[in-house]
Amino acid sequence: MKFVRFERDDKISYGVLNGKDIAEISGLPFEKPLIYTKKIYSLEEVKILSPVTPSKIIGIGLNYAGHIREMKDKKPAAPKIFMKPSTSVIGTGEAIIYPVHMSKRVDYEGELGIVIGKITKNVDVEEAKDCIFGYTIVNDVTARDLQRSDGVWTRAKGFDTFCPIGDVVETDVDPLNLHIVTYVNGKIKQDSFTSHMIFNVYELVSYISKIMTLLPGDVIASGTPEGVGPLNAGDEVEISIEGVGTLKNKVESA
Amino acid sequence: MKFVRFERDDKISYGVLNGKDIAEISGLPFEKPLIYTKKIYSLEEVKILSPVTPSKIIGIGLNYAGHIREMKDKKPAAPKIFMKPSTSVIGTGEAIIYPVHMSKRVDYEGELGIVIGKITKNVDVEEAKDCIFGYTIVNDVTARDLQRSDGVWTRAKGFDTFCPIGDVVETDVDPLNLHIVTYVNGKIKQDSFTSHMIFNVYELVSYISKIMTLLPGDVIASGTPEGVGPLNAGDEVEISIEGVGTLKNKVESA
Repeated sequence: MKFVRFERDDKISYGVLNGKDIAEISGLPFEKPLIYTKKIYSLEEVKILSPVTPSKIIGIGLNYAGHIREMKDKKPAAPKIFMKPSTSVIGTGEAIIYPVHMSKRVDYEGELGIVIGKITKNVDVEEAKDCIFGYTIVNDVTARDLQRSDGVWTRAKGFDTFCPIGDVVETDVDPLNLHIVTYVNGKIKQDSFTSHMIFNVYELVSYISKIMTLLPGDVIASGTPEGVGPLNAGDEVEISIEGVGTLKNKVESA
Repeated sequence: MKFVRFERDDKISYGVLNGKDIAEISGLPFEKPLIYTKKIYSLEEVKILSPVTPSKIIGIGLNYAGHIREMKDKKPAAPKIFMKPSTSVIGTGEAIIYPVHMSKRVDYEGELGIVIGKITKNVDVEEAKDCIFGYTIVNDVTARDLQRSDGVWTRAKGFDTFCPIGDVVETDVDPLNLHIVTYVNGKIKQDSFTSHMIFNVYELVSYISKIMTLLPGDVIASGTPEGVGPLNAGDEVEISIEGVGTLKNKVESA
């Protein structure tokens, strides 16, 4: 199933997307059983928001060999985790605001997003699958110049609007071999498969859960493949993941 | 005024602390006017919790010259920011759980905590004071071995229980020259003044607000003075800040 979050008449709801129709649900998608309000909206009638509102977003650095090569970095012995603040989240169609007051180099990073479905603490790799609600797309927008100069990554990855998430959460997809493609202004920039991850989604969930408790709706951005590059004001960046959806955002100057 | 958050009969409330009595309020401390429920509890009747539940915790690295010297590091040109997850927060009296499965060196770091009072985005230093609700104490517990080996700090600072906050939020105190002392098992380990900060509290709020929007209840851990050192299972760590309060936690093995 494809879940969306949307706004209509100043009210925010979740729903299940079927083609161009959204069947509204009451409550959160993680809650079972799903309760339908019996209201159906068409995609044109609503504003699509980020499909979840994570309490935390954990990013993974250097999780594809090709990206490690282009960053001239080393393969990590364990997943390299960082955080993006919840205030950086935007949905598909919203603008990435270029922080011209601090950065001169802002990159896209197309990534598969893992959405947690239940309270997850200290689980093994075998148990991780049951803790995952579904998959989405994350653009782990990064001020590359600040990432290099700061050492720690929080500023570089933490600006408002630097975490586009969407357009949907897909619950029925095998995350281990999905085609992921990033386009800037229609040109292909990243083209890879999630099978190239060094630590797969189940290993990531297990590893993180041994450090911190993951909560329903929390998102793990599972790392970006090779082909990262700069964005400029006016650009449109689009990330598509096979069987999941498409995340599209324009870049605007602050 | 001193604000606390507390649990009694499975119900969580906020209140104003007067000596040993808590005057319960309805709603959040940031909301004005304060509405008292007219219920008064004594400290003995309740369990004190972390005084706020931040959506994010921003830490500041290397903000006291003495600590920079002991870390053999350089004075940063701008505040060095990092994040701790909301799942790491505990209150005074709760146990810091030593993650023996991953770390062999866990340090205390006594710090003044800044509690944000309203939505704060892109404010100047002069405007920052109006955005601050009050001050608390944070123990920025850090797995020092992982901090060094990982490069990024999220794992080292992000374990569950690694962010004791409390015991109160004090709204009426000048944050620029407060005496801060950390004790381990009754022995003084850190003894400094907030006047020694490289970037003061108003500069920190302004700087962070130019990166990310701060929300009511968000906490900035403003950096630790010199004297950091290891904790072991069984230790009791106590941080006192003049005019604010005392934060006390025992260390337990996982």
